[in-house]
Amino acid sequence: MPDTPERARQLPAASVERLPSYLRALADLAARGVEGTSSAELAELSGVGPAQLRRDLSYLGSNGRRGVGYDVAYLYGRVRAALGVAEERRIAIVGAGHLGHALANYSGFASRGFVVSLLMDIDPQLIGTQISGIEVGDVACARELLASHGVSIVVLATPGSHAQEVCDVVVAAGVREILNFAPCTLQVPDGVKVRSVDVGSELQILAFHSQGRAEE
Amino acid sequence: MPDTPERARQLPAASVERLPSYLRALADLAARGVEGTSSAELAELSGVGPAQLRRDLSYLGSNGRRGVGYDVAYLYGRVRAALGVAEERRIAIVGAGHLGHALANYSGFASRGFVVSLLMDIDPQLIGTQISGIEVGDVACARELLASHGVSIVVLATPGSHAQEVCDVVVAAGVREILNFAPCTLQVPDGVKVRSVDVGSELQILAFHSQGRAEE
Repeated sequence: MPDTPERARQLPAASVERLPSYLRALADLAARGVEGTSSAELAELSGVGPAQLRRDLSYLGSNGRRGVGYDVAYLYGRVRAALGVAEERRIAIVGAGHLGHALANYSGFASRGFVVSLLMDIDPQLIGTQISGIEVGDVACARELLASHGVSIVVLATPGSHAQEVCDVVVAAGVREILNFAPCTLQVPDGVKVRSVDVGSELQILAFHSQGRAEE
Repeated sequence: MPDTPERARQLPAASVERLPSYLRALADLAARGVEGTSSAELAELSGVGPAQLRRDLSYLGSNGRRGVGYDVAYLYGRVRAALGVAEERRIAIVGAGHLGHALANYSGFASRGFVVSLLMDIDPQLIGTQISGIEVGDVACARELLASHGVSIVVLATPGSHAQEVCDVVVAAGVREILNFAPCTLQVPDGVKVRSVDVGSELQILAFHSQGRAEE
């Protein structure tokens, strides 16, 4: 994949956001023993339009061949490489409460290219305990722990009341990619990328559909 | 809000998905005491383009006035009504493990229009226990419990290995809106709306950006 990073860097942000769906659809096809797919099939499995899919994949230098389509295994490798998860990535979870526990036990990481290799907390009562075989470290030592575990992506699983404080600590420790579960908007310097799992928004979208149904 | 449901029903799905961002931006503005806003300001706070925002809001019959813009409190009410969260909605969580615990304690529901009023599990050891003051019910009695609690939206917080089984039970009990945290694709009949919190996809998007940075 010598040229993938160069090309992938030109990917529009909106295309990047669709790559995980393509990867999941390709993994599902591969699991079913399917070796070749069309842009129409892959688009339907991914929930996007075929033209959109072809445009996104052309950024990866993966043009399907007319009448032949896409090779599932090859394209899977290209998309993984483009996303930077061709090799397993180590992540850290900050916050060893119920959510941290749930995430440490989450079975969905490995198949997506991630392994939880570090847990941290600010609570002296939790520091030093073990969760799923991982010792909980002190977030005050974040820089050293992140470096020794080879971690660059951090999942914030703290209560909302502590999220900004903990975010500041891990950003000061050099973290540039954060997945935030706390129900608040984090303030971060330029160059730090935060994505938020926004449970409230998901429920509001469901509420909209619920309302439509109730009126039918 | 006499005409909102009629108009809102014509909302494209993509517009519906953006309404929660507008609502959150409006809530932030209101919290700061801001009474009026422009489409440019609201669009920037919501992370969309101004033309997109104006188009989305026009479906709600809320056109900003040239030179005046949008009234924050009025628009907030319109968007809440359109989403069907003008009044508090009750939700149920199925799965009383660590994730269910974390969600039962989640501080972000109330401000988005939701209250957790019911917890259920399939594990006899958990049924009858209390979490955050809510007794855990037996998912086998889902129909009765959902009806008596006035719940229509269910959050699935089970392990992936039980998600489809539990999904089938709640769908059979009449649930039509499901928020799924398990790392699997649920099979549901037509008319049932599932949204998934996909932690793996979020991490893959962060991994892409991490990769770009590492090469700079």
